Amino acid sequence: MKDIDFLKLVKSNIRSLRPYETKEIPCRVKLDANESPYCIDITPDKKILQRINRYPDPEAVKLKKAISMALKVNSANILLGNGSDELIYYLITAFGGPVLYPIPTFSMYGIISQALGEKNIEIPLNEDFDLDIDNMLAAIKKYNPKLIFLSSPNNPTGNCFSAERILKIIETSKGIVIADEAYQPFSSDKGFLPLLKDYRNLAILRTLSKIGFAGLRVGFLLADKDLINEVNKVRLPFNLNALSQAVALEAFKNKRLIESQIKNITSERERLFEELSRINNVSPYPSEANFILFKTKNADIVFKKLIKNGVLVRNLSSVVKDSLRVTIGTHGENNFFIKALKKSIGGKA
Amino acid sequence: MKDIDFLKLVKSNIRSLRPYETKEIPCRVKLDANESPYCIDITPDKKILQRINRYPDPEAVKLKKAISMALKVNSANILLGNGSDELIYYLITAFGGPVLYPIPTFSMYGIISQALGEKNIEIPLNEDFDLDIDNMLAAIKKYNPKLIFLSSPNNPTGNCFSAERILKIIETSKGIVIADEAYQPFSSDKGFLPLLKDYRNLAILRTLSKIGFAGLRVGFLLADKDLINEVNKVRLPFNLNALSQAVALEAFKNKRLIESQIKNITSERERLFEELSRINNVSPYPSEANFILFKTKNADIVFKKLIKNGVLVRNLSSVVKDSLRVTIGTHGENNFFIKALKKSIGGKA
Repeated sequence: MKDIDFLKLVKSNIRSLRPYETKEIPCRVKLDANESPYCIDITPDKKILQRINRYPDPEAVKLKKAISMALKVNSANILLGNGSDELIYYLITAFGGPVLYPIPTFSMYGIISQALGEKNIEIPLNEDFDLDIDNMLAAIKKYNPKLIFLSSPNNPTGNCFSAERILKIIETSKGIVIADEAYQPFSSDKGFLPLLKDYRNLAILRTLSKIGFAGLRVGFLLADKDLINEVNKVRLPFNLNALSQAVALEAFKNKRLIESQIKNITSERERLFEELSRINNVSPYPSEANFILFKTKNADIVFKKLIKNGVLVRNLSSVVKDSLRVTIGTHGENNFFIKALKKSIGGKA
Repeated sequence: MKDIDFLKLVKSNIRSLRPYETKEIPCRVKLDANESPYCIDITPDKKILQRINRYPDPEAVKLKKAISMALKVNSANILLGNGSDELIYYLITAFGGPVLYPIPTFSMYGIISQALGEKNIEIPLNEDFDLDIDNMLAAIKKYNPKLIFLSSPNNPTGNCFSAERILKIIETSKGIVIADEAYQPFSSDKGFLPLLKDYRNLAILRTLSKIGFAGLRVGFLLADKDLINEVNKVRLPFNLNALSQAVALEAFKNKRLIESQIKNITSERERLFEELSRINNVSPYPSEANFILFKTKNADIVFKKLIKNGVLVRNLSSVVKDSLRVTIGTHGENNFFIKALKKSIGGKA
């Protein structure tokens, strides 16, 4: 029996790597993961299950065609991932670093980049949570990043970055700028899709995870076909399983239903924002996404009391001082959350 | 509009990378991908589809428990992947190279390692398709590989490597030795699972892809828990979608049916071997897997004629001279293949 220290055997960048936290805390109302509160009950075509002994279509031709028609982009401009997480992995594998992104933002850019041994450059957002354009441009000049990730609307702050600043970054950068539009469906902003043809170094990430299909793990990268071809080289050939392909395909047939759910979520968001604004010692940040970040005194304590009162939100106080993030739920869930929050702040939990 | 040469922008190791070939050639009988010819019709629990708006269990606790019980290993010794392909990706991401493997073997070891920018060391098998132990040990001494991949039974040759040689390699290596047992269920050899406790640097890859569930993309890594913990650091948190988790869980309840299908496949393999041996100018290699590699004159031409005659096999003539690989099908498919092969060799296609 050999004595092996695996921590010594792994690559040095892995030693200090802390994986993404996904501790499951059971709770009556789950508003922590920016999931849709609505589910569209889709049963995959029986034929798919009767062919599950066969490998999935490695090119997911049918699903690409559905996306192509829904978003009016060519199939050659689409790369599918097992969640957009996987596409971030592939982008960094193919292009390497340095990887630049503002903070706070979606934590996976930094985690994946570190896992792949690339250098991260983190530029704090300004006090309005918008891009600090001077520092961003200075960092681009200094480090010449291969990849720049801009989550817009940004998670966890909820706002869109100024389009003008994003354009300036795209125009300045010699690397690829990825607009991560996971939350774009909830925004009044039209997003960067219309600009895809004008900027070859612009790539867009979209996902089904926030609009009712987190369980499927389907994300897509939209970009110049030459860029797609390079990233495709590092893709595992059967990265999208047959069942997710089939259900995602059906999802695109329910576009209207999904759109009406999104409308519910955004109107609930506005209501929740008003409700939160009226609570003493609570101040919500405006949001273009399916969640609201809000400040509250003693966020760590309030977070724990909320759990006791039946609601799980995300504690982001280590990222944005005194702040919690709540996903927009159904009307009933949001009411339950508001009551629970009042109780939790009142200290009577 | 910027003029960007993406080929210059990608990492240098990506430039010459050719992705795994998965060209779909429609054919009446499909015997090219080492899939099971049998399907177990499993409908996932309705509850799973009604919760598809939620992220999947990131730890896949239930599925790990089922694997734990079936294989008599602890859940802490299991890491699940979106196919074992993904686990190969993670192993190389975590430990890096050099990556050593014999050739010919499963092409993904080399492709993934190149995608991740690691050095590959390829040692040809001896003329019996067994490990060339002297050259393997010399390469271990010279390069001190972090990872050694041994597919046993080996794809595409079909044989198991000598257990004694594998043990010698495990004992000599300071890195991790991965026994890729994708085809172990079809072998009379019991595999390396019983030795897992004795060798901390031994890891085993298994998959559901060859035993009836290629469409799900479920692979598992079995190893020391400290090794699992390190590889887990680079795993995407939601790498296994909810539907595949649910169907895979049901699959483990059909153990007996799967075992009887495996028995059919191995007895058909013996029959097919005999049939092939009797054809002039055809010589099959003995196989412990769900496929047979066979030599034939003018393999490239025979391959194309087989397609015309309704059977798709894998052309491996660029890897092993004059050879084709046929997956074991159903009794009827195998008969159809034998007839088509005779026709294709006779030149009357």
